[in-house]
Amino acid sequence: MPRERMVVIGGDAAGMSAASQARKRRSPEDLQIVAFEKGRATSYSACGIPYWISGTVAHRDDLISRSAAQHRENGIDVRTRTEVVGIDLSARTVRARDLEEHGREYDEPFDTLVYATGSIPMRPPIPGIEAVGVYGVQTLDDGTALRAELDSGRVRRVVIVGAGYIGLEIAEACQVRGLDVTIVDRSPTPLGTVDPDIGSSITDAVRAMGITLILSESVVEIETGRDGRPVAVHTDTERRLPADLVVLGLGVRPNTALAEQAGIALGSSGGIAVDTRMRTQAEGVWAAGDCVESIHRLSGQRVVVALGTHANRQGRVAGINIGGGYATFPGVIGTAVTKVCDLEVARAGLSEVEADAAGYRYVSAAVDSTTRAGYFPGAQPIRIKMLAEKRTGRLLGAQIIGREGAAKRIDVLATAIWNEMGVDEILSLDLSYAPPFAPVWDPVLIAARKAFDAVEADTKV
Amino acid sequence: MPRERMVVIGGDAAGMSAASQARKRRSPEDLQIVAFEKGRATSYSACGIPYWISGTVAHRDDLISRSAAQHRENGIDVRTRTEVVGIDLSARTVRARDLEEHGREYDEPFDTLVYATGSIPMRPPIPGIEAVGVYGVQTLDDGTALRAELDSGRVRRVVIVGAGYIGLEIAEACQVRGLDVTIVDRSPTPLGTVDPDIGSSITDAVRAMGITLILSESVVEIETGRDGRPVAVHTDTERRLPADLVVLGLGVRPNTALAEQAGIALGSSGGIAVDTRMRTQAEGVWAAGDCVESIHRLSGQRVVVALGTHANRQGRVAGINIGGGYATFPGVIGTAVTKVCDLEVARAGLSEVEADAAGYRYVSAAVDSTTRAGYFPGAQPIRIKMLAEKRTGRLLGAQIIGREGAAKRIDVLATAIWNEMGVDEILSLDLSYAPPFAPVWDPVLIAARKAFDAVEADTKV
Repeated sequence: MPRERMVVIGGDAAGMSAASQARKRRSPEDLQIVAFEKGRATSYSACGIPYWISGTVAHRDDLISRSAAQHRENGIDVRTRTEVVGIDLSARTVRARDLEEHGREYDEPFDTLVYATGSIPMRPPIPGIEAVGVYGVQTLDDGTALRAELDSGRVRRVVIVGAGYIGLEIAEACQVRGLDVTIVDRSPTPLGTVDPDIGSSITDAVRAMGITLILSESVVEIETGRDGRPVAVHTDTERRLPADLVVLGLGVRPNTALAEQAGIALGSSGGIAVDTRMRTQAEGVWAAGDCVESIHRLSGQRVVVALGTHANRQGRVAGINIGGGYATFPGVIGTAVTKVCDLEVARAGLSEVEADAAGYRYVSAAVDSTTRAGYFPGAQPIRIKMLAEKRTGRLLGAQIIGREGAAKRIDVLATAIWNEMGVDEILSLDLSYAPPFAPVWDPVLIAARKAFDAVEADTKV
Repeated sequence: MPRERMVVIGGDAAGMSAASQARKRRSPEDLQIVAFEKGRATSYSACGIPYWISGTVAHRDDLISRSAAQHRENGIDVRTRTEVVGIDLSARTVRARDLEEHGREYDEPFDTLVYATGSIPMRPPIPGIEAVGVYGVQTLDDGTALRAELDSGRVRRVVIVGAGYIGLEIAEACQVRGLDVTIVDRSPTPLGTVDPDIGSSITDAVRAMGITLILSESVVEIETGRDGRPVAVHTDTERRLPADLVVLGLGVRPNTALAEQAGIALGSSGGIAVDTRMRTQAEGVWAAGDCVESIHRLSGQRVVVALGTHANRQGRVAGINIGGGYATFPGVIGTAVTKVCDLEVARAGLSEVEADAAGYRYVSAAVDSTTRAGYFPGAQPIRIKMLAEKRTGRLLGAQIIGREGAAKRIDVLATAIWNEMGVDEILSLDLSYAPPFAPVWDPVLIAARKAFDAVEADTKV
């Protein structure tokens, strides 16, 4: 009989990182760990799903970094296909439903609870949105269902609603499979997390791939046929887009329903409120991953960022603390990267819209350069845009768009932003140089130089 | 008649950056600028020479970022093939020798002098070292002569003395050209700027390319034939290596002869002593580039680092200051990168030997990972080694070895070192993630985690 029981709700990155870290630090005699997962797989790369759908990644199981069986060998009692349908904080139990056993329900007691339910795709309340054949791509089971349908050969025309990261990545996957792909987005440029000038370069690149990209139009209805499946998507300009299948890429929201019912407090952003060690406001209840809110280190605001890196890290922090150690999660700065065919796009810090909302005054500067010395074979175009605070010159945000070798440079700028560097000091950084890797002035430095000039020019006015 | 005269000695990165920045800020009426360059070309990429020799870069002129004619159009009186042979600080003149006009000499007056003479290859005093057919590769004229000789078809066997950056890069260039290549180095591993464990991976990779790499042996003689050209290289183990051509890759030293004769002070490292604005200790005399010493931000020592990035930056700083602006050069942290065939190697901060010499106590940790998600096509191996200070956990140094996509990650660590980050804080960095770009735990973070564990384990002891 273990001294303490730990229950984890959600068996992907955050939940299983917490479980693994706690397991590493405490013996099974001291701490029993039970992890519930609604789906079939644990610890998988949701970010990898588009690449399995396209066929770039050969096997679905390649996306699974640690299977339920492996977790069990490690002393974690993982129960897949088991949904938690209720939490009773005073009785210290969760209500579990075994989806394999005709929905048999039972209570599982806990002393320590980790809430790691992730996020769910946005589904605006329009006609047809719940039809069979309208897919969100959030879990591996979602991805498996989508891929099975594409493999069936019945689908020729795909309409994707929303041109965010998932929308663009799934669009590429379908394009690679030879399908007729249309993306509809209500904004004038895709990928709302980058500024419109960067966004319009994405527009050009996506269209050049042969994907139809319809902007500044909202989807108002998904028309279904007699079999209840989608036949077309209608927009607010009365456009009718024939579709055999619809994918939702409208973003996600934290999956907080169970927490709300149980009385676990949410924060201002709508995610679960946690402290720096990932404790919720309920005694003995921790939370991690897409369902929690984090501090944005530049805006000072609470934000929900659904990203595997944070989920892994937050889960790890919770698990170390539950295991008796000490760890904290110090917040995010909004770093993200994606690849759409040959196009690489990355960002860190604040976009213009975000910087405005946070009250910053800033100048911006953009430069075009190459990933290697201009004369070196394989040099690819790279554009870097920087936002620097007026007067102080502090780097507030950076965006990169380019071809191979461009996007990962965002990490240098993310590290600079993290350290609150000014663009003048970035210009002094001792970065690596050799012709196969960079021009003698790395594009990062050229951008910093131009941003510094802009700060100086602004100060003089 | 201009108000002030500026003379620049040396027309490559440092000198011409200084001239260009001063020109940008001051009119020709206010400041006349004369730049002397011993060679034929200005503002070229010395680092690109090996890639032109190999044929990877098609045209020699691709390496020239700004020609003498372009500088002249910009209002800088560039005099190529003109060597400065003396400086008279009290008369405020330099003595110039026109190599195209039978060595005609004349005096050129200056108010402001920029000393940017670069560096010269080490030539140990062994028999045969001065023979025709023994090449240093420092200037574009050196590279042109070397390539002409390789193009002649007379050369089949090349022996390279020294397995540093230049030695390895020239070895690859000759290998690509189908020559029989041998490198001799007196150390047990190549590339002395990285630790022996990283170095031995380079040994394996270089040998796998078909290059003969002889270690722990010193060259004692270059045997010449009746025509005065090399026929073999002899080592201290009485090994005789037949050679049609010899390349020196033993490093460089600052070219300070003229400065010493003129009484311009050198620093403890043997480079010209400069302050943070690149002023020498002589009134009105500035210096920049490979010939000056810089502060190493981790060791606190003065060091001479011959690298195009620093030369450009220091020249720019001198030129801004001469132009009436304000700029400083805040030192170096020893960042470097190279590529030998498919192998990428990078370093930043201190190596073990350097950290020992600086008096630091540290732990080290190395991890093997992949450049992309392990399941993603094109994922390449990457090994990252970190040195972290005991007790504080501050990152003191990092080394990377791997294949495509590995080495440029050093810039993240260079930025972290610059900001004096601890490995625990590096672990919290919000770095970019998507399967085509990184595993969900970027190799940089995995290494930081392991280094942090090592710091913690050491603290407990």
